[in-house]
Amino acid sequence: MAVRALWWDRGKLALLDQRQLPRRTVVLRLARASDVAEAIRTMAVRGAPAIGVAAAYGMALAARGGLSPARAAKLLGSTRPTAVDLFVGIDAVRSAWERGSDPLEAAHAYRARVVEECHRIGSAGAPLLAHAHGVLTHCNAGALATVEWGTALAPIRVARERGADLFVFVDETRPLLQGARLTAWELARERIPHAVIADNAAGHYLARGDVDAVLVGADRIARNGDFANKIGTYEKAVVARENGVPFYVAAPWTTFDARRADGKAIPVEERDPDEVLELAGRPLAPPASHARNPAFDVTPSRYVSAFVTPDGVVRPRELAARLARRARR
Amino acid sequence: MAVRALWWDRGKLALLDQRQLPRRTVVLRLARASDVAEAIRTMAVRGAPAIGVAAAYGMALAARGGLSPARAAKLLGSTRPTAVDLFVGIDAVRSAWERGSDPLEAAHAYRARVVEECHRIGSAGAPLLAHAHGVLTHCNAGALATVEWGTALAPIRVARERGADLFVFVDETRPLLQGARLTAWELARERIPHAVIADNAAGHYLARGDVDAVLVGADRIARNGDFANKIGTYEKAVVARENGVPFYVAAPWTTFDARRADGKAIPVEERDPDEVLELAGRPLAPPASHARNPAFDVTPSRYVSAFVTPDGVVRPRELAARLARRARR
Repeated sequence: MAVRALWWDRGKLALLDQRQLPRRTVVLRLARASDVAEAIRTMAVRGAPAIGVAAAYGMALAARGGLSPARAAKLLGSTRPTAVDLFVGIDAVRSAWERGSDPLEAAHAYRARVVEECHRIGSAGAPLLAHAHGVLTHCNAGALATVEWGTALAPIRVARERGADLFVFVDETRPLLQGARLTAWELARERIPHAVIADNAAGHYLARGDVDAVLVGADRIARNGDFANKIGTYEKAVVARENGVPFYVAAPWTTFDARRADGKAIPVEERDPDEVLELAGRPLAPPASHARNPAFDVTPSRYVSAFVTPDGVVRPRELAARLARRARR
Repeated sequence: MAVRALWWDRGKLALLDQRQLPRRTVVLRLARASDVAEAIRTMAVRGAPAIGVAAAYGMALAARGGLSPARAAKLLGSTRPTAVDLFVGIDAVRSAWERGSDPLEAAHAYRARVVEECHRIGSAGAPLLAHAHGVLTHCNAGALATVEWGTALAPIRVARERGADLFVFVDETRPLLQGARLTAWELARERIPHAVIADNAAGHYLARGDVDAVLVGADRIARNGDFANKIGTYEKAVVARENGVPFYVAAPWTTFDARRADGKAIPVEERDPDEVLELAGRPLAPPASHARNPAFDVTPSRYVSAFVTPDGVVRPRELAARLARRARR
């Protein structure tokens, strides 16, 4: 894979500073858990699977730095509330650490699991796109969001390898433009045909019949299939269903929150209003105007055609049973 | 009224350069029809009713400049395809001119008609908001879009005067940010409580029950109630209906295109992709990425709760008969 969001490099967590893409390729090398927490909070690294892996390595760095497991988990867990992967990654290393196993080995294992699951998502989801041409995606659910491969982008990559003639409509994804900056960057590197569109234009293309499938990632998926993802996902899901276009949510098992019955109480992070009011320090709105900036929304299960998991396509009504079976293993 | 988009000033058309708001208040003074055409094309003046008035004055300037009525109409009519007001404004002056009347007087009369109709829209629409708190609007359908008063903002202004406790959610309206730049500027000047939101966040607030009504303007309304408006309007309309939130379209009669049966063939302007790929000359996406930039979308009539016209609230199913009655007068 050409793109990697983060990797372990001689005692440090190396990660691409995603705030600076696509203008500059800057690698941060973090030696302390508090630096990892700051990188997650400020979105130098983002995407639910990727922040889970970053937090796992943050736990390993915390162990080296002499923190207690509880303190390390609190430090890293207080960075962002919505993506459940963050807590899954923390807990995976914490339980190994508390058992006396090597936290770094546990972080490596967690990373390997996420990468492997994303790879399988690609194979599982590619058949859904075999006869598709136009595909819409929101935010970045690519390699940058997941270490390697991606979630929503993985089936696109595999379907292309298998000969599908795809064109990707990339929602720019305001306010932080992860679509225009990151998804477009990944697609451009791999020469996958695409066009960036204003988030407002997605409905236009859905209504015109130019989109055969919508594929997105997720930050947290409840047992009944309600899921949180980047703000705007809900609108795309509603408009997709209104137009009879299938809407797929691709995620590794780390993103499924089997302890949560539905989406009602998923915490939605509210971020700094300046992310809306400014772009690169330049004010967009008048000084007297305020903004609201919810970073996520929750899409009810009824809008989801299917979840693309590492173990195949799962319909929303089958999800709870599938999660229960996994828990019994 | 504190805000005016344009006015006649000693032989010239004066207009606020809306591309520069809210950072700078620059008044352009245009003496030639070709300058008016350029101002419309580049969106120094925008908003369907306002470009209709600008084009009417452009016709008057063309008459002074020695152009023929046909040539002037072609020059001004080739600037932007979607808003029907443009052609209504041109035709109003052209027919006076061809009858031997003073084109400038005809432009003044057209302007007065639009301002007066917008004023009446405010009174007609205010009762719809009597018990509302949260109101969502998209793009700018305020004084800047209509010379004075506004269409969607007019009922908000009047309802406030009548004591309604309103809070306006302002879609920022990418790509050109008419919400964040222009609607927020108008609301801030009048101290109307509001928050700018990313276009992606509208669905979140609709689903949470924070929005009691959606009010937008229009660029062209067909006889059956299908209408074109700023890109993204269609998504908001679909999500509003999905959540049982009334969706109102406010427009003067100049925006109704009685000769068009439905929205299927309304021309949708496709603008420069750089409006999506850049902001103030700063690239947002990688150099290898393309963009698509439809400036409008067409919302089917079934998503419209009612049209707010100068002569009261009109349900979509009543519209064709109402337009036929007006044509017979």
